[in-house]
Amino acid sequence: MEQYVQDTLTQFRQLVRKISSYGEALALMGWDLRTGAPRKGAELRADTIGVLATEHFKLSVSKEMGGYIEILSRPDVFEQLEDNDKRIVQDVRKEYELNEKIPPEKIQKYSSLTTHAQTVWEEAKHNDDFKGFEPLLSEIVAMKRDFIDYWGVKETRYDTLLDMYEPDLTVAKLDVVFDRLKARLVPLLEKIKQSAHQPDNDFLKQQYDIGQQEKIGHLLLKEMGFDFDAGRLDESVHPFATGLNPGDVRITTNYMPEDVMSAIFSSLHEGGHALYEQNISHDLAGTPLATGTSMGIHESQSRFWENVVGRSRSFWDRYYSDLQQLFPEQLKEVSLDTFYRAANRVENTLIRIEADELTYNLHIIIRYEIEKMLFNEGLDVKDLPKVWNSKYQEYLGITPPNDALGVLQDVHWSGGDFGYFASYSLGNMYAAQMTHTMRKELPDFEKWIAEGNLLPIKEWLTDKIYKYGKSRTPSELIQQITGEDLNPDYLADYLEEKYNEIYHLQTSN
Amino acid sequence: MEQYVQDTLTQFRQLVRKISSYGEALALMGWDLRTGAPRKGAELRADTIGVLATEHFKLSVSKEMGGYIEILSRPDVFEQLEDNDKRIVQDVRKEYELNEKIPPEKIQKYSSLTTHAQTVWEEAKHNDDFKGFEPLLSEIVAMKRDFIDYWGVKETRYDTLLDMYEPDLTVAKLDVVFDRLKARLVPLLEKIKQSAHQPDNDFLKQQYDIGQQEKIGHLLLKEMGFDFDAGRLDESVHPFATGLNPGDVRITTNYMPEDVMSAIFSSLHEGGHALYEQNISHDLAGTPLATGTSMGIHESQSRFWENVVGRSRSFWDRYYSDLQQLFPEQLKEVSLDTFYRAANRVENTLIRIEADELTYNLHIIIRYEIEKMLFNEGLDVKDLPKVWNSKYQEYLGITPPNDALGVLQDVHWSGGDFGYFASYSLGNMYAAQMTHTMRKELPDFEKWIAEGNLLPIKEWLTDKIYKYGKSRTPSELIQQITGEDLNPDYLADYLEEKYNEIYHLQTSN
Repeated sequence: MEQYVQDTLTQFRQLVRKISSYGEALALMGWDLRTGAPRKGAELRADTIGVLATEHFKLSVSKEMGGYIEILSRPDVFEQLEDNDKRIVQDVRKEYELNEKIPPEKIQKYSSLTTHAQTVWEEAKHNDDFKGFEPLLSEIVAMKRDFIDYWGVKETRYDTLLDMYEPDLTVAKLDVVFDRLKARLVPLLEKIKQSAHQPDNDFLKQQYDIGQQEKIGHLLLKEMGFDFDAGRLDESVHPFATGLNPGDVRITTNYMPEDVMSAIFSSLHEGGHALYEQNISHDLAGTPLATGTSMGIHESQSRFWENVVGRSRSFWDRYYSDLQQLFPEQLKEVSLDTFYRAANRVENTLIRIEADELTYNLHIIIRYEIEKMLFNEGLDVKDLPKVWNSKYQEYLGITPPNDALGVLQDVHWSGGDFGYFASYSLGNMYAAQMTHTMRKELPDFEKWIAEGNLLPIKEWLTDKIYKYGKSRTPSELIQQITGEDLNPDYLADYLEEKYNEIYHLQTSN
Repeated sequence: MEQYVQDTLTQFRQLVRKISSYGEALALMGWDLRTGAPRKGAELRADTIGVLATEHFKLSVSKEMGGYIEILSRPDVFEQLEDNDKRIVQDVRKEYELNEKIPPEKIQKYSSLTTHAQTVWEEAKHNDDFKGFEPLLSEIVAMKRDFIDYWGVKETRYDTLLDMYEPDLTVAKLDVVFDRLKARLVPLLEKIKQSAHQPDNDFLKQQYDIGQQEKIGHLLLKEMGFDFDAGRLDESVHPFATGLNPGDVRITTNYMPEDVMSAIFSSLHEGGHALYEQNISHDLAGTPLATGTSMGIHESQSRFWENVVGRSRSFWDRYYSDLQQLFPEQLKEVSLDTFYRAANRVENTLIRIEADELTYNLHIIIRYEIEKMLFNEGLDVKDLPKVWNSKYQEYLGITPPNDALGVLQDVHWSGGDFGYFASYSLGNMYAAQMTHTMRKELPDFEKWIAEGNLLPIKEWLTDKIYKYGKSRTPSELIQQITGEDLNPDYLADYLEEKYNEIYHLQTSN
C-alpha cells in the first residue's frame, strides 16, 4: 500500500472513531432522558443534544471526510483495502451522500424538534391529547417530506424512508410480501376466531407483584446469555434497547402490575436486540459497523427470542415452574398447557406491543399503509386519528375508544422514525426463515430449549449473524444462512402449524 | 451597538453554548461511569471521553475564540456589553489565557499523566505503596511547577494555584486567616480533649437497614428543598454532586450499614451543593456562569446544610423522632440530647472526610502548609510522607500507622488539584459568616429549623447567593451579604459556642 493511502486510511479511521464517540455520547444522553433524567432538565438537554448532533453530523459531511472518501473509493485504492475497511468506506459514503444534501441548520432544527417531541408525545399520550402533539408531528412530517426532496426519489417517495432502515427495500417489494402474508394470515385469523377452543387468559391479568416480575425477567435474561457486565436493565415508559458500545448495551422494560407477561416478553424482546449488539466482534468497536446490519435483521433477533423461543411450549416446559414458584397464589392451579395456550392467545386488540404473534403483523401492515399515505399520497397529519381508527376497524374489527389507545400509542413518529415499522414484520419473517435453517443445523434445538440450554443457540446466532455487525448486508446474511431471499411463507407456515395445534383447527392440506 | 460587535457577540454566545454542551455531555458520561455503567464498556467509554474532552478543550483555545475575546475585550466594546456578557467574557478570557500559555503538547501530556495517575493512586492507596505512586506524583508536581512559570507569578508561586479555585486568594491572605483560626481552634480542641463530658456514639455504629436509611435521606433532601424534578439521587462509592444544567443536578450518596449518620450527612452535604446549582438563574444556563462562583463558596453551601443546619440541635428537635421511628430498635432508648451530642463528637482522627466540624479545619491547614512547602519552598515529593506524619502529630497528636491512612488518603493530588483543599475550610468560614448575617436578617432562623420550615432559608440563600451563579466573585458576594471580607472569627465563635455547650466547657470570656 502506498504511503499516502496508508496515511489517508489512518486519518479516516481516526475521524470515524471521533464520529463514533459523538454517537456514544448522544446515545447515552438519549438513554438518560428516557430512563430517569429529571424532567426540568429535559429542555436544555434537548438543546445540548441538538448541538452535539450537529457536530456529529458536520463531521460526517465534512470536507475532510469527503476527501478521504474520494481517495479511498478510487478503484485502484479501494481494492487494496481490507474487507472491513471496504465496508466502512461504503457505509460512511452512503451516510455522507445522504447527509451532505441537507443544509446543516435543518438537521439541527430536526434534531431539537424530535428530541423535544418525544417529551411532548409522552405527555400527549398520558393525557389522550392528540391535538397537543399534532403541531409538532406536523412539523416533523413536513421536515421529513422536505428531506425526501433533498435525498431524491427512486420509485416512490416512501421508498426513500424504507431504505434507511432496510437497505434496498421498496414499496414494490414490500407490497408483494405483505400481500402474500395477508393472503395467508387473514384466513388463519378467521379460523381462529371461529374455533371453539379459545384459550382462557384471565389468570394472567391478576395482580402480579413487580418485585417478583423483576426476578423472572432477570433470570430469563441471564439464561439467554445477556451479559450484565456489558449491559444493564432499567425501566422506561416504552421498552427499548440501545448499544453504546459492545461492552455497554442497555435495555429497558415496563412492569405492569396487572399483566405478568408484558414485562417478560418485552425483556426477551429487548434482550434479543441486546444479544446482537453485545456479540458484535470487538474488532468493529468504534466503527459504524458495530451495530445491527438493518432494523429488519435486528428485529428478527428480538422476535426470535421473544416469540420463537419465548412463546414456545418447550421454553415453558423448562421455566413455567420458576414462574409458578414466584407467583404461587396466581398460578398454582394453572396447568402448563393452560398457561402455554394463554400466552399464545390470539386476540384482536388495540395495542401493537401487546399483540400476539399473528395479529402483530396486521398492526404493522396498518402502519405501513398509513405511512405510505403520509408520504406517497399526501395524507394530512390532522387526519391521522380518523384513518388510524378506520384501518383498525377494517383489519381487526375494533375501533380505539381514544387516541391514547390508538394513534398516540407508539413513540416512533415523535422521533421521526417513519419507515421503521415494516422492520418488525420483516423481523418476524426473517426469524421464521432462519429458524427453519436452525432446526436443520441444530437437530436438538427444541430439546435444548426444553432443558434451558440456550447458550448454544446464542452461539449459533453469534456465528451466523451477531459477530458480523453491519459488515454484511441483510440480503447477504439471509442468503448466507438460509440459501434464499426473504420469503414470507416460512412465517405463515410457522404460524399455521403453531395455531392449528393451539386452536385445534381443521387443517385443509 | 455597532453591527460587527453585535455579530461578534452572537457568534461568541453560540461558541460558548457549544462549549457548555460538551461540558454537559462529559459530565453525564462521568456521572454514568460512577453510578452504574457496565464494567465491560468502561475502557471504550474512557476513549470516548478522551475524544470529546479534547474537542471541548480545542474549542476553548480556538483561534475563533481568541478573535472574539480580542474584539469584545477592547475597552470601547466591552463597556457596551450587558453585565452578564461582561462576566462571561472575563471568565472565558481567563480560561483562554491560562490554556493558551501552555504548549498544547504539554497540556496533552499533563492530561494523560493525571488520568493515568488516578488509577495508579487508587492501587497505591489500596496497597499502601507510596513508592509506587511517587514517580508519577513527582512528574505531576514538576509539570505544575513548570505551568506556574507559564502562567506567571504575582506574589508567591503557590498563589497562582490558589487563584484557580478561589479568585484572588493568596498565601498572604490565607496565612493570616489560618493563623487566626488555629490560634482559636487549637486551645478549644485542647479543652474538649480534657472535658469529662465525652459523648458516647457507639449506638450510631450498629446495623442500620439501608432501605430505611434511604427513606430518611430522601425525606431530608425534600425538606431542605432539593427538587427531585430537577435532580436525582443515586449511589456511588464516593458521594458527589454534578450539575448538568440548572434543571438537572445529580447527587450521590453511599450507604454504610454500620454507620447511620454517614449517608445522612453526605446527603445533606451534596444536597447543599445541589441547592446552589438548582437555583442558579435560568438566564445563565448554557453559559460558564451557570455554576458556583468558586470552590470555597460552593463548599460553604454544602457545609452550611451539612453542619450549621444538619448538625444543629434545632434540626434534630424536628427530625429525630422521624429517625427513631425508622430505627426503633436501635434508637428508642436514646434521648435526643444523647443523639445530638453523639452526632457532634469531636475526635482526633486520621481521615479528613470522616472528621468532625472542628478538627476538619486542622486536616485542611496541614494540607495547605504542605502544598505551600511543595510550591514555595521546594519540598521534595519523596519527603511528603515524613512531613505529613509529623504535621499530623503536631496538630492532631496522632501519627498515621501507614501511608494509606496518611498521605495517600485523598484523590486530589493524583488529578493535579493542588490549591483545592483550602476551599473546604474557606467553605466553613464563609458558612459561619453568612449564618451570622442570616440570624440577624431572619430572626426566626432557629425556630424555623426546629419546625422543619427550611424553605425560607433556601429562599434567602437563593436570593443572596444561588441565583447569581458565577456572575459575582466570592469577595463581592461575601461583602454584599455580610458587609465585610472573609473573617475567620465567625467560624471560631460558632464552634466555641457550640462545643462549650456540648462539652460543658468552662468559658473564660
